[in-house]
Amino acid sequence: MFTVVSPQEAWSRLEPHLSPIERVEVVPTGEALGRVLADDTLAPVDLPHFPRSAMDGYAVRAEDTHGASESQPAYLNVVGEILMGKPAGVTLAPGEAALIHTGGMLANESNAVVMVENTREVDASTIEVVRPAAKGENVIQVGEDMASGEALLSRGSLLRPQDIGALLALGITEVSVFQRVKVALIPTGDELVEPGNRPGPGQIRNTNAYALAGLAVQAGAIPLRLGIVRDSYESLKEAAHWAMKEADIVVVSAGSSVSTRDITASVINSLGKPGVLVHGISLRPGKPTILGLVDRKPFFGLPGNPASAMITFEIFVTPAIYRLSGCNQLPKRCEIRARLTRNIPSAPGREDYIPVKIEERNGELYAEPVFGKSNLMFALVKADGIARIPLDRAGMSAGETVMIRVF
Amino acid sequence: MFTVVSPQEAWSRLEPHLSPIERVEVVPTGEALGRVLADDTLAPVDLPHFPRSAMDGYAVRAEDTHGASESQPAYLNVVGEILMGKPAGVTLAPGEAALIHTGGMLANESNAVVMVENTREVDASTIEVVRPAAKGENVIQVGEDMASGEALLSRGSLLRPQDIGALLALGITEVSVFQRVKVALIPTGDELVEPGNRPGPGQIRNTNAYALAGLAVQAGAIPLRLGIVRDSYESLKEAAHWAMKEADIVVVSAGSSVSTRDITASVINSLGKPGVLVHGISLRPGKPTILGLVDRKPFFGLPGNPASAMITFEIFVTPAIYRLSGCNQLPKRCEIRARLTRNIPSAPGREDYIPVKIEERNGELYAEPVFGKSNLMFALVKADGIARIPLDRAGMSAGETVMIRVF
Repeated sequence: MFTVVSPQEAWSRLEPHLSPIERVEVVPTGEALGRVLADDTLAPVDLPHFPRSAMDGYAVRAEDTHGASESQPAYLNVVGEILMGKPAGVTLAPGEAALIHTGGMLANESNAVVMVENTREVDASTIEVVRPAAKGENVIQVGEDMASGEALLSRGSLLRPQDIGALLALGITEVSVFQRVKVALIPTGDELVEPGNRPGPGQIRNTNAYALAGLAVQAGAIPLRLGIVRDSYESLKEAAHWAMKEADIVVVSAGSSVSTRDITASVINSLGKPGVLVHGISLRPGKPTILGLVDRKPFFGLPGNPASAMITFEIFVTPAIYRLSGCNQLPKRCEIRARLTRNIPSAPGREDYIPVKIEERNGELYAEPVFGKSNLMFALVKADGIARIPLDRAGMSAGETVMIRVF
Repeated sequence: MFTVVSPQEAWSRLEPHLSPIERVEVVPTGEALGRVLADDTLAPVDLPHFPRSAMDGYAVRAEDTHGASESQPAYLNVVGEILMGKPAGVTLAPGEAALIHTGGMLANESNAVVMVENTREVDASTIEVVRPAAKGENVIQVGEDMASGEALLSRGSLLRPQDIGALLALGITEVSVFQRVKVALIPTGDELVEPGNRPGPGQIRNTNAYALAGLAVQAGAIPLRLGIVRDSYESLKEAAHWAMKEADIVVVSAGSSVSTRDITASVINSLGKPGVLVHGISLRPGKPTILGLVDRKPFFGLPGNPASAMITFEIFVTPAIYRLSGCNQLPKRCEIRARLTRNIPSAPGREDYIPVKIEERNGELYAEPVFGKSNLMFALVKADGIARIPLDRAGMSAGETVMIRVF
């Protein structure tokens, strides 16, 4: 019926066609968590912009402390206190020091800070310094954290809390980010009813569109859930036509029979070029997956089985969302390595994904397979992720390390 | 000045006091992604609620196929097609079969499905079956995926896409979840100005409240950012008093000098019992961290240094948020193991956190330390996470496995 290709070959047919959407918008930096930066960002100013103390202690002229020791302390005259958030306001003459706090601005003509632990108070205006300070010691120089013009974040960065903090530290209060990618989700099937309705004999509830919407949200996209589409070429074509106009990615969660899969493929081919790129992947679950491209938009036909739909979404649609979102890589947090607790059979030439629970034993992570019945959705509920059995392996043995997609 | 305790001891003083907030709310299941379930959930119905075919093929009476083979096929009379989403509508007499699709309802009096691959069409109403079918083969029995009354999800589950799908599959269209935890963030410091303002000499921008707000959001909480509070007992007490009323957790990102840390401790003690539980932790960065408890609400005093504030937030405040959120465990995706690329010095008796970049080489993960200058915020920007050097180690060697908090 169709030619099955490896998951890698399938992705390599689609991937060269995926590029970031061109729509960008400007948002306040404080609200840009999880957004993807559309421009390279350079530091517009030096940070710090004044020489700062890294310690609580005394701003000094380093040369005044040379040779100081417990037995032969250097005596310095304290001429004032540098207040937080104020210009230093004090200029040191030789033999003088000023009280300073962590983050305070160095006194004029001072070039080091002596930690308070290395001083003793003699009287209200005199201290002993018991260790010499090197020039620049405990001082953060202008531009030392970040120099004006230095590269901070590149286009394609997925903004994390520290990135937000760093941008704001430099006074960058607005950023240009890619708009969120829109993913249309089309549930098809004559047997489907909406979850709020009671299914009659032969009917089941539409859950795929909701579960896949959750995966889309986790990948930073906006899901557009369409209503249930019946198993006919005309109905699906009409829905797909609308979805192509409104969304950046279209996902059909197909009816589970062969004929409905063929309808999905025909509709993709009818909508534009090049149409279906892949129909059938050496993957379990997920063999009948369709990858297509219409007018430069990726179009996926996923299996109707809920677990198959979720797993193939994670394998193909999630990376496509990140690519269209402008993201320069998948977030690192998506994968974990762990040792299998038992042997897993597979067939060479097929990539298998097995729901697993991750358990810690003696500081090591183990992957315990969760076996399901027909509908692996409930296995996924019990699992922490899905372990990958590579294409070239006839199964894997207990103790071997598998890569787990946290899910 | 204060007694330093280990991070584990610090957490063990606070942790027994943390319990889920009592506020719950009912939300539509389709909008409950990332929320925490407030009740144990049982399946209210059987799934499937009718016997379903797991394959495309023919519904048969298994006994009619016994002994069938390529050379001696069983001949069956096809009496109809079972349509998707409809009651079977067909009753099989001996020697009869009905065309069925994956997910279709089994014909009355049938007890197995023969895959289409194991049949040959003889004429419009006759098929040959070339392999025997066992009773129940390719049939998903009533309640086989989930039996009515079976436990689906427990109180404290953080709802993922598959959980949403499973709940909806069972017709559970509303769920009771814990309300989101509110975290008040109080930035203090005479040196702070809001990020949109240009800092003068001695001043810096307030970034901690924004970066910590991002961490709170990532943990599923609602951050309440207060305005900048000046370094005085009265100002902080007033702000903290308001925060205690409005929020479930209060976080002061303290000025960086000793005196302002002492103000935070005094304010915590003034607000109620038991007050400060821990003041000083054998942790780098983060030694001056304060853990407190006032009227059963956790109250944190974090260091003012932006990276120290973020790291101590992740170590203490994030787990507290999950605990108050009712979550029964930290999400698994937060941690990764990798091998150090180089030696890291530390001091025994102190837990160190080092920003690292995670790199894959030959299928193994490596942690490359990112060294920063004074403000590790920029090291965190370059990093993928923070690696933990345990308390009892005088450093770790290249090649050793470290636990990394993805960050």
